[in-house]
Amino acid sequence: MKQTSLLCSRIGYTFNDFNLLNLALTHRSVSGQTNNERLEFLGDSVLNLIIGGELFTKFPQGKEGQLSRLRASLVRGETLAQIGGEFGLGEFLILGPGEHKSGGARRESTLADAVEAIIGAIFCESGYNEARKVVLRWFDSRIQALTLNDTVKDNKTRLQEILQHLKMGLPEYRILSVSGSSHQQVFQIECAITGVEERFAGSGLSRRQAEQQAAGFALASLSVKYKSAAN
Amino acid sequence: MKQTSLLCSRIGYTFNDFNLLNLALTHRSVSGQTNNERLEFLGDSVLNLIIGGELFTKFPQGKEGQLSRLRASLVRGETLAQIGGEFGLGEFLILGPGEHKSGGARRESTLADAVEAIIGAIFCESGYNEARKVVLRWFDSRIQALTLNDTVKDNKTRLQEILQHLKMGLPEYRILSVSGSSHQQVFQIECAITGVEERFAGSGLSRRQAEQQAAGFALASLSVKYKSAAN
Repeated sequence: MKQTSLLCSRIGYTFNDFNLLNLALTHRSVSGQTNNERLEFLGDSVLNLIIGGELFTKFPQGKEGQLSRLRASLVRGETLAQIGGEFGLGEFLILGPGEHKSGGARRESTLADAVEAIIGAIFCESGYNEARKVVLRWFDSRIQALTLNDTVKDNKTRLQEILQHLKMGLPEYRILSVSGSSHQQVFQIECAITGVEERFAGSGLSRRQAEQQAAGFALASLSVKYKSAAN
Repeated sequence: MKQTSLLCSRIGYTFNDFNLLNLALTHRSVSGQTNNERLEFLGDSVLNLIIGGELFTKFPQGKEGQLSRLRASLVRGETLAQIGGEFGLGEFLILGPGEHKSGGARRESTLADAVEAIIGAIFCESGYNEARKVVLRWFDSRIQALTLNDTVKDNKTRLQEILQHLKMGLPEYRILSVSGSSHQQVFQIECAITGVEERFAGSGLSRRQAEQQAAGFALASLSVKYKSAAN
């Protein structure tokens, strides 16, 4: 219990119901029934609204697409896992024995899911406004640092827009291979564009990363062929 | 103004700021700057949380995947457009002249977007709890009618799970053609599975519909080849 109250002080919210916090910390490897997946489902929506609402207010000139991209950068797993890391959340996670041994407490997705579950648990216990206060403190410096200029479109978005502009087909991404150990998998992705013979292969530690790299190569190639469109 | 107050009585919420309601009703065809896209961005998140929270409470035994599927059925464009239709929302929409002529007031996506924007506007003006009360009244009978048995997995989900079970590659969906007028487009989609020579073509009035049909054909074929897995 001492440990749990330490975590409460780090996240800046004291649970009345410690069982609820424990549930938020319980990975599905412990039990198929009693785990944090439901709270994660809830917390994901709570977080999206909190961050979306904040960006809506902070950037009255921001267009919908810009707000979406800014939000995506804040609520993605990588950022949530960082926040979990700042709480030292790994040492509080309740994992099944296999998951524990295989390093689950340091896994990005596990940390991110638990952060969302904690948000869901706060919302359950104290409602939207209280959850909002707590979560905005976690994100404060990250939100302060954002500007609308940060909404540079990512490679996949830019590629898609350019292809639409050129009236070409949508790019397709296909996994070529997945290699490496289960905690450090490397994805090889191929991007194919109808009507373009060349294929563009990217690699990365996530599917998303590999796709972005592949899209980047496709953009570079298109920008040579269709100068005006891709620049 | 009379008209707008009629709409307020239909949606069950009276705006203090009629400009905010007007903004929610303003399609982007009117202006690139002053339109309902920002409110729609916000309202989408508000709606997701309201419905997600309600399902979380209503189905304490529901698993995360079931809650997600139930929510998706409630918040999808088709359902939102129905709700807009119940308000007679089409006649209140503020559209650019071209959009008006081409029947934008009856377009599913336009109605659905405006419903989300109205939710965003209520949230802006009166906060989460008030928005929740209003929106739950709209969805009341639909939510009452749901059971966990409704969470039959859709074809695409089932196909993906079966392929994973069989350790086969993920299915890929490719648009073969889009035909028809811009308000009644028909999509032809092909589903390809690595290692399976046969291709499965589906068609429908949306990409999603066509993909679901294609996945259904793939499931039917796989269930012949791999009886135990697909049933």
